[in-house]
Amino acid sequence: MNGRPVDSVTGRPHDPVDALDDLVRGIGARESRALGRAISRLERGGAGARELVTRLYPQTGRARLVGLTGPPGSGKSTLIEALARHARSAGESVAVLAVDPTSPFTGGALLGDRVRMQSLYTDPGVFIRSMATRGALGGLAAAAHDAVDVLDAAGFDLVLVETVGVGQDEVDVVRSVDTVVVVVVPGMGDDIQANKAGLLEIADVFVLNKADREGVDRTEKDLRFMLELAGEVGGPEAWVPPVVRTVALRDEGIDELARALDAHRSWLARGERLAERRRRRLELRIEQLLKARVLAAVGRAEGIARQALEADRDRTDPYQAAERLFREVVKRGDGGTDGGEEASAP
Amino acid sequence: MNGRPVDSVTGRPHDPVDALDDLVRGIGARESRALGRAISRLERGGAGARELVTRLYPQTGRARLVGLTGPPGSGKSTLIEALARHARSAGESVAVLAVDPTSPFTGGALLGDRVRMQSLYTDPGVFIRSMATRGALGGLAAAAHDAVDVLDAAGFDLVLVETVGVGQDEVDVVRSVDTVVVVVVPGMGDDIQANKAGLLEIADVFVLNKADREGVDRTEKDLRFMLELAGEVGGPEAWVPPVVRTVALRDEGIDELARALDAHRSWLARGERLAERRRRRLELRIEQLLKARVLAAVGRAEGIARQALEADRDRTDPYQAAERLFREVVKRGDGGTDGGEEASAP
Repeated sequence: MNGRPVDSVTGRPHDPVDALDDLVRGIGARESRALGRAISRLERGGAGARELVTRLYPQTGRARLVGLTGPPGSGKSTLIEALARHARSAGESVAVLAVDPTSPFTGGALLGDRVRMQSLYTDPGVFIRSMATRGALGGLAAAAHDAVDVLDAAGFDLVLVETVGVGQDEVDVVRSVDTVVVVVVPGMGDDIQANKAGLLEIADVFVLNKADREGVDRTEKDLRFMLELAGEVGGPEAWVPPVVRTVALRDEGIDELARALDAHRSWLARGERLAERRRRRLELRIEQLLKARVLAAVGRAEGIARQALEADRDRTDPYQAAERLFREVVKRGDGGTDGGEEASAP
Repeated sequence: MNGRPVDSVTGRPHDPVDALDDLVRGIGARESRALGRAISRLERGGAGARELVTRLYPQTGRARLVGLTGPPGSGKSTLIEALARHARSAGESVAVLAVDPTSPFTGGALLGDRVRMQSLYTDPGVFIRSMATRGALGGLAAAAHDAVDVLDAAGFDLVLVETVGVGQDEVDVVRSVDTVVVVVVPGMGDDIQANKAGLLEIADVFVLNKADREGVDRTEKDLRFMLELAGEVGGPEAWVPPVVRTVALRDEGIDELARALDAHRSWLARGERLAERRRRRLELRIEQLLKARVLAAVGRAEGIARQALEADRDRTDPYQAAERLFREVVKRGDGGTDGGEEASAP
């Protein structure tokens, strides 16, 4: 390996410091190639991701961060495209991050999205990238949060994050933004009822897309009923998510959606709300990274496999085996730094 | 709290030791009420789950563990019902665990499944339970693995685990079994291609359900092509997942499916394969529990929130904050035991 330090997690050699400097410069200049390389680096995780985020973090906090989530087929990509065009017409630069939920059944959809967003690919003021992580320590959500940092630090005015809302991972992904748009389509009434709590927890704005379809009134009524119930609990100062009807394919309702996003941003800006939300986001990220850090320290392959072998031999239950492993990490004191990166870390 | 020890994770008082004894006795007698209470306890997680698994673990390892996963609408519940009836007609006792993927969009489906499985509810040789966990430390997969232990220790001959295959959590759930059945339906060809790796990784048997539908030949051809490619890599001793056609609603192909499950079980039984698979499963569980253990030790609410506040104030990036927190846990030495449970732990 030519004596180059190696990331203990990925087994890849680290970039020398000057390569990292080049990358940071390219990101600052919003060069597509640098941005793409940076996000690939975040997908791989490990020390490479850590170094990059540490370098860029001081430049973050300026972009408007908007996330869209919703079930497959609700038209998220078309909405994102319309929102991006809207922002471009106001002279803003836009980055789109489409996060693949790493599912064994739903993958591949984003390829289609990419084709649908083709009109934006030729616009130098727009950067589009889809992202997938399989099995990296810290997982998809951590990598997505890191990617949002990169796009924010690069100076994009608006960062749009798209994810298919199907599980906890995807909810964590969409928490990387300031304003969460939940997209529903007519006929989802029962689903809405069944998932009241989950939707209310994350939605700042509801979009009722494909609003030219049958059943739109019923679905809106269900949504508003749910929001009223929540509104009574929240008090007069609470944000009540507006319901915006759109037909994204025909650009209908996009102005209204943009106004709703602005309204939420203004509400956040009052008092400590935006700061509070960003603190909660930081909390979530620290929690995710801590998990990854512990697993790295334990030595994923070696430590856990060995404990499993021993536990299997003694018929020790997994709780006791996990406890034993935990105590080992603690005893080791330094937690087994995941070697090598110190040389190039800032 | 009457001086009763309290679980630091859930804040609930622990059951006294004699209540745990009662519960363990009820589980051993396969009483529905005791089984239901046990699984609720596992859903809550924390010390209550830990104590129960530690008590029951020595009695596990005897049941046949079969999991079914596949996209929504592929007919998993109907297949499970048919498989359960098949096992009952051979005099076996059966437990069904239907795991809800805790999604903000897909919840509620299992209620319908429960209605569809109604015929089995009146049979005392069958236990059916659906399971959902929201936000418990360690998560859904850990709770599902624990529940499989309980059903195994209770002495059921066959334990069937159903989960909707949509993300990593659900893949982890289905790894709690010895034989994984992946259910596909005609017309899924593109999805299969897109997700080759993920499907091959987990499938021991493919079921092509709703095989009376158009496109069945094409989907089977896609599946077999994919399996052939993998077979060349695996060598002559490798298990090649069979593709079984079924029409579960009309009980067609269920005998053949049962034979495929038996064949896989016989293959596992040769040499060290079953032992090896169970060791890998133990490894996964220890990893999950270790994550939960660390978060409990750190003091989820207090430690992480405080670090986030400090990080936010100093503009420290989340990686450095997580590292700082990790070192704190390590320094604390004992890792901050999640107090109280020692009194009632065995």
